[in-house]
Amino acid sequence: MHNWVFLNDRFVPENEAVLSYRDLSFQRGYGIFDFFRLRGNTPLFLEDHLDRFYFSAESAHLLPPLEREALKAVVFELLNRNNRPDTGVRLSLTGGYSEDGFNIGKPTLLLSQHPFSAPTEKQVRQGIKLLSYAYQRPLPQIKSIDYLMAIWLQPKRIENGADDLLYVQDGYISECPRSNFFLVTEDDRLVTPAQNALPGITRKKVLEIAKQKFITEERPVAYEEIFTAKEAFITSTTKQILPVAQIDSHSFLQNRISHQLLQLFKTYWTNALV
Amino acid sequence: MHNWVFLNDRFVPENEAVLSYRDLSFQRGYGIFDFFRLRGNTPLFLEDHLDRFYFSAESAHLLPPLEREALKAVVFELLNRNNRPDTGVRLSLTGGYSEDGFNIGKPTLLLSQHPFSAPTEKQVRQGIKLLSYAYQRPLPQIKSIDYLMAIWLQPKRIENGADDLLYVQDGYISECPRSNFFLVTEDDRLVTPAQNALPGITRKKVLEIAKQKFITEERPVAYEEIFTAKEAFITSTTKQILPVAQIDSHSFLQNRISHQLLQLFKTYWTNALV
Repeated sequence: MHNWVFLNDRFVPENEAVLSYRDLSFQRGYGIFDFFRLRGNTPLFLEDHLDRFYFSAESAHLLPPLEREALKAVVFELLNRNNRPDTGVRLSLTGGYSEDGFNIGKPTLLLSQHPFSAPTEKQVRQGIKLLSYAYQRPLPQIKSIDYLMAIWLQPKRIENGADDLLYVQDGYISECPRSNFFLVTEDDRLVTPAQNALPGITRKKVLEIAKQKFITEERPVAYEEIFTAKEAFITSTTKQILPVAQIDSHSFLQNRISHQLLQLFKTYWTNALV
Repeated sequence: MHNWVFLNDRFVPENEAVLSYRDLSFQRGYGIFDFFRLRGNTPLFLEDHLDRFYFSAESAHLLPPLEREALKAVVFELLNRNNRPDTGVRLSLTGGYSEDGFNIGKPTLLLSQHPFSAPTEKQVRQGIKLLSYAYQRPLPQIKSIDYLMAIWLQPKRIENGADDLLYVQDGYISECPRSNFFLVTEDDRLVTPAQNALPGITRKKVLEIAKQKFITEERPVAYEEIFTAKEAFITSTTKQILPVAQIDSHSFLQNRISHQLLQLFKTYWTNALV
């Protein structure tokens, strides 16, 4: 049974899902993407992910070869063909075949389906360790394929016994390489960086859900706020809500509210419509 | 007649030079490269480019599948097969096929031969216009494929009638997206940013050549130094030495020394051994 991939204008078996070396992703690391997961065979928060996909594309000066309704039809045909429940779908769009190896050509569109690894039970229960690093992702509103720094830092992350990285620049926290970051303050407010981070879909849902019980603030978050915060957690499509036990040498003493939000999110997620 | 490309372990015709969508260049924009040009069919400054290629690879945690002498043999076979004098050769190395779409796999090596566009005669004579932008390339010592910002800025560059961009952060100049930057001071010293820019091969040669006649300084270069500088120019493999006539709204009144250096460089280049 093939694992089908959609490439530009047709479905191809995975081993035929290839790109020319002239593609601007290979030449200049230029492209955007999005990733959503399935509950069974149902895409979750698909409209939000499509909103962001088209926003990233337009912001990156890339015109997707398919309009929204046609792209949705391709998504559902991909799910039907592959029948791989509880996996994820990646929508990719690159700068395409570039005549001069620099300027954008006709964008390459690729839809692929992948299993993904969720956090371990122990990570969810005890929380993870983050290592901070001085960096700000360029064009943070765009879900670009620019992960140079994240991948380059993996040996340092491992050497420090950390589970993930936390980008901090000029004293302010932005995000983890593939997750958004939240703090729970002493007085039970939820704060998350406002401007310099990817507008995460899970982040948005968590803010919506949390508003029922907590004061939420989207604003600049200083690194030093970790020292007075009660809890910290990260959010993403694959991680949902994952408590943070430690940032650098600072440990958080509890994760009660993170776990409470995770339960609320899981209920919301289980009942969510497409 | 084929245009041959070397892919991992064999020569393939250009249209078979394809990569899996699982390659980390497509998934995460992760890869390094180098580019040298030919004088006739002779590679120029090949040893310098190979030094930098292996340095970039090691710094990016990528192990090239070929050692230096074997890679050189492939370069010369590529030149023989293609017989395209006065073009350029790109050595590319990516994070390879990634099992999980994030961690580095077995790196993909690709050697390709390309024509390139040199500056126009008018650009060389009159100098070009640069538009400054607040940015610092991450891991500037590595010739990575991370050109997200450079390509994203192209519409803004065109809108401003500029020929190229100049990255400036916190008041200090680093580099252009694909060139190094020099100023000629009031007292005829040549200054170029030291730490936060790619160690260009042409930059290095220009510093060597210029030392015979000028005081040269590799040090932090403040943006405000452009206002008292006599001249500015940029250097790269394809541009050699290209005078700068204007940065933002500031015009330089002469380019005498830039042209003098260009003549010295051309003589050096014409006589250079491999």
